[in-house]
Amino acid sequence: MGTLLGLGAVLTYHDHRCRAAQESPHIYTREEVKAHSSLETRIWVTLGSEVFDVTEFVHLHPGGPSKLMLAAGGPLEPFWALYAVHNQSHIREILAQYKIGELSPEDKAPSTLKTSDPYADDPIRHPALKVNSQRPFNAEPPPELLTENYITPNPIFFTRNHLPVPNLDPNTYRLHIVGPPRGQSLSLSLDDLYQFPKHEITVTLQCAGNRRSEMNQLKEVRGLEWRAGAISTARWAGARLCDVLSKAGHQPCETEAHVCFEGLDSDPTGTAYGASIPLARAMDPEAEVLLAYEMNGQPLPRDHGFPVRVVVPGVVGARHVKWLGKVSVEPEESYSHWQRRDYKGFSPSVDWDTVDFDSAPSIQELPVQSAITEPKDGEMVESGEVIVKGYAWSGGGRAVIRVDVSLDGGLTWQVAELDGEKQRPRKAWAWQLWQLRASVPPGIKELNIVCKAVDDSYNVQPDTVAPIWNLRGVLSNAWHRVHVRVAP
Amino acid sequence: MGTLLGLGAVLTYHDHRCRAAQESPHIYTREEVKAHSSLETRIWVTLGSEVFDVTEFVHLHPGGPSKLMLAAGGPLEPFWALYAVHNQSHIREILAQYKIGELSPEDKAPSTLKTSDPYADDPIRHPALKVNSQRPFNAEPPPELLTENYITPNPIFFTRNHLPVPNLDPNTYRLHIVGPPRGQSLSLSLDDLYQFPKHEITVTLQCAGNRRSEMNQLKEVRGLEWRAGAISTARWAGARLCDVLSKAGHQPCETEAHVCFEGLDSDPTGTAYGASIPLARAMDPEAEVLLAYEMNGQPLPRDHGFPVRVVVPGVVGARHVKWLGKVSVEPEESYSHWQRRDYKGFSPSVDWDTVDFDSAPSIQELPVQSAITEPKDGEMVESGEVIVKGYAWSGGGRAVIRVDVSLDGGLTWQVAELDGEKQRPRKAWAWQLWQLRASVPPGIKELNIVCKAVDDSYNVQPDTVAPIWNLRGVLSNAWHRVHVRVAP
Repeated sequence: MGTLLGLGAVLTYHDHRCRAAQESPHIYTREEVKAHSSLETRIWVTLGSEVFDVTEFVHLHPGGPSKLMLAAGGPLEPFWALYAVHNQSHIREILAQYKIGELSPEDKAPSTLKTSDPYADDPIRHPALKVNSQRPFNAEPPPELLTENYITPNPIFFTRNHLPVPNLDPNTYRLHIVGPPRGQSLSLSLDDLYQFPKHEITVTLQCAGNRRSEMNQLKEVRGLEWRAGAISTARWAGARLCDVLSKAGHQPCETEAHVCFEGLDSDPTGTAYGASIPLARAMDPEAEVLLAYEMNGQPLPRDHGFPVRVVVPGVVGARHVKWLGKVSVEPEESYSHWQRRDYKGFSPSVDWDTVDFDSAPSIQELPVQSAITEPKDGEMVESGEVIVKGYAWSGGGRAVIRVDVSLDGGLTWQVAELDGEKQRPRKAWAWQLWQLRASVPPGIKELNIVCKAVDDSYNVQPDTVAPIWNLRGVLSNAWHRVHVRVAP
Repeated sequence: MGTLLGLGAVLTYHDHRCRAAQESPHIYTREEVKAHSSLETRIWVTLGSEVFDVTEFVHLHPGGPSKLMLAAGGPLEPFWALYAVHNQSHIREILAQYKIGELSPEDKAPSTLKTSDPYADDPIRHPALKVNSQRPFNAEPPPELLTENYITPNPIFFTRNHLPVPNLDPNTYRLHIVGPPRGQSLSLSLDDLYQFPKHEITVTLQCAGNRRSEMNQLKEVRGLEWRAGAISTARWAGARLCDVLSKAGHQPCETEAHVCFEGLDSDPTGTAYGASIPLARAMDPEAEVLLAYEMNGQPLPRDHGFPVRVVVPGVVGARHVKWLGKVSVEPEESYSHWQRRDYKGFSPSVDWDTVDFDSAPSIQELPVQSAITEPKDGEMVESGEVIVKGYAWSGGGRAVIRVDVSLDGGLTWQVAELDGEKQRPRKAWAWQLWQLRASVPPGIKELNIVCKAVDDSYNVQPDTVAPIWNLRGVLSNAWHRVHVRVAP
C-alpha cells in the first residue's frame, strides 16, 4: 500500500518539474521561512542552505501530508534523519523541483543563546517535538510519529526535565553508592559500571502527567499540558541496580526500606532532583531495575540523563532519575519534593486547601493506559473504512491483553489487533501498539472513536475523566476519545 | 452505642414478660416453624427443642432487626455460634418470654438425605448462607454479615463448589507431588506435610463471578447469580508450595511453565476439578502460595477443601484448588475445562457464537474491587446521617489505598475510613473494610450511593457495567451502586 502510494506520487511529480528550477534563487532568512508553515501562507522547508516551497507536494507526500507538515517552516534534516528512506538521490531530485531560493549566509547556522541563561547549555532538540515548556524543557512527540515505530527514536522520545540539563564530563563522572553501616561505599566511574554484567531490556516510560490536558479541560489542574505523548519506548542497557547494590554490601531486608536516587541536575539553591523506590523492588533481579548508560544502542542523549540514569520498569517516569549522582538505602522514602509533595493521586473532592500529601502513597506502578494516535481529533476521515491506531501499556510488568475500540462513543466495541515484541510473563515492561480496520457504515457523518485497554490482571480503564480528576492532573487514564467527521 | 441499645432493649423486654410463659406448650413441626419467617406470618425460631415467636422482639434486637431476621423460621444455634455474646443467662431469660411451644419429637434431629444422591454426603451448611445453587453447593454470606468481621467466620465463608464434596479420611489421605525428570515424586501424608515450616497468612478469596448478578441484570450471562458476597477473608496456615516443590527437586526456570493442581472431587465420569498457576509464582517465596491445612486456626472445613487446599494469594478463587490430590509441573497450563474453557474475560462484543477461549488468558490476578454492604439496596435510611460500609480489595498483592463514596450517583465524592490489618508492601493479600459517616442534606428523599476503590498501582474500578460485560459474567467490578430512600 505504502509502496503503491509512493510510486503514484513519484509519477505525479513529473508534472511539477518545470516550475521553479529555471528561476534565479532568492535569499530568505530563517524567520521568513518560519512564517510559511500553513497552506494559507504556503509551506516552505529548508535542506542545507536551500529553501523549498512544497505546498503543492504536501498532498502527494507518500508518508501522508501530516508527516510532512511537521517540518513546515523549518529544516527537513531532523525528519530525514528519522526516516532513512529519504536519503536517496531520486528523492533529492524530486525536492529540487520545488526550490525557490537560498538561506541568507548569516542564517545558515542556528543562532546561539545568551550564556547568562541557566538553560543556555541545554541541548538542541528535534523540531518535531511538541513543546509544553521550554525552561525546563518538556516536550512530547506528535501522535502521528509516536506509534510510527515500536521503539521510539531517541530524538523524539518524550522529554520531562525538572531543571536545566547538566553538562557532565564522562571522564570525570562518578556515581556514588552509599554502602550499609558495615559495607563499603563505592565511587564508580563509567568504566567501573561497564564491568558489571550488561543487561538490556525494552521498557516504556510514561510521565504521571500523560494526558493531563483532558483533566484540565474538565476543571483546571496544576501542571504541564501533556497530551497523549508523554510516553515512549526504548531499548535500555546498563548494570542491574541489584548487582551494584550487592557489590556495596546491601541485601534484601524484611523491614521496609527505600533506595533513594539523587540527580546531578539542581536548581539555583543547589537542590537536586530526587526520588526513591522500595528496596524490595531494587533488590529483586526479576524487577530488572537498571543503571542505564545506553538508549537504543547509543550513549544516553543529554536530555535523557547522560551519562547514567535509573530505569525502573513498570514504574512512573518520575522515579527514573536522570544524570544520576548518588544512590543510598534509607529507612524512609526520599525527602525530595517530587517524592513527597508531588506525583501522588487524590480523590476528586480534594483541592489545594484540603490536600494532605502525606495521606497518599507516592505513585510507583502506573495503572492500565491506552490512547488513539490516529486519526487525530477533529480530522476528516474517508468514508468506507477507517484505520484506528494507538498504544496501550500497563504498569508493574502487567501485559496488555486486549484493546477494545468503539466508533460510537462506547455503545459497541471491536477488538483491535495488537502488535509488538513478545512480552515475558510478569515482565511486560513495554507497550503494545494496536490497530483496527473498521468499516464506516454508509451515511454516518461523524465518529466518536474510543479506546480502552485490559491488562493481564484484568484491570480496565475508567469510562470518564471526572471521577478520577485530581488537583495535579496525574494518572489520567480514562477511555481515550477522538471525534472525527466522515467525508461525504 | 451497641451497649446502650442493648440496655434499652432489655428494659423494654420486661413489658413482654407475662404473655407466653403461662400457656401450656403446643407441639410444632419444623415445617410449621419454617412457614413463620416474615412479619406477615409472624416470626418463629427454635433453640434446642423449644419454639419461640419473636415477632415483637425483632425491632428490639440489639444487633438490629436484619440480623435476627436471618434466623427467621429456623434454629438460632448457628447464629449464636457466630455471635458468642448470646451465650449468657440473661439472654436465655429474655428469649424464654417468647416461648410458644416445643418441636415434635421426630423433628428434633435434622432429617437425613437419600443416599442415591451424589450430593447426599455433602456437609450441613450454615443457614445464614444465601444459596445460589444446592448441587453443587454455592452460597454467599448476606451483606450484613459479610463485613461484620475482618476475618470471615468459617461457617459463613462463601462456598464455591463445582462438584460433590468428597469425604476424605485424614489418616489415609495422600498428596501426590510429581517430581521433575531427575527428581523424586512425593506421596505426602498429612503428618509429612506438617513437617514443612508452617506458614500463616491472612488472604481474601474472591470468586471470578462475584457481583455477576449486576451483569446479568443488564444482559443475560451464563453462571451462578452471585451478588456481592462471593468474597471472604480467612487466616490460612500450611506449607509453602515452593518448599514442597523444592523438596521434590523442582526449581524456578527461565522458560514458561505451570504448576497444575488436581482436586479429589470428581464428576460421575471421574473427571476431577483442576487448575494451574505459573511456575514463577509457585516458586516465588514472596508470593506465599500455600498448601493450606488450617483455616482460622481450625482444620479446613469440608466445604473448603479438607484436608488440604491450595491458597494462591492475590489470585482468583478458581485456582485455589480444594481437596488437593495431585501437583505437577507442566510446560502448558492445566487442560482442565475450568482453566481453558471458563474463567476468562472477553470483550462485550463476544457472544457464544463467536467466543474463542484460546484468545484470552486464564484469569489469575484479579482487578481492583469494592462493594457496599450497608445500607442495602432498596432500604429506608434515617435522615440526618447515614453510615455506609463495605469492603475493598485488589489482586496481586496490591493494597487498597483509598475508597471514594458518593451519595449522589457519582457527582461528588467523600473519602471513606479504611480499617483492617496493616498490609505488607507488595503482599496486601487481604481486603480492607471501610466506612463513611455522611450527613444527609435536609429534604433529600433518596440517595444513590456509589463506591469505588483505588489500589496502590492507582488502578480504579470502571464507572459502568456495560463496557465490561462479558458472556460468562466474570470480573464484574464496576462502581457498586445502592439506591435507598430517606425517612421523612
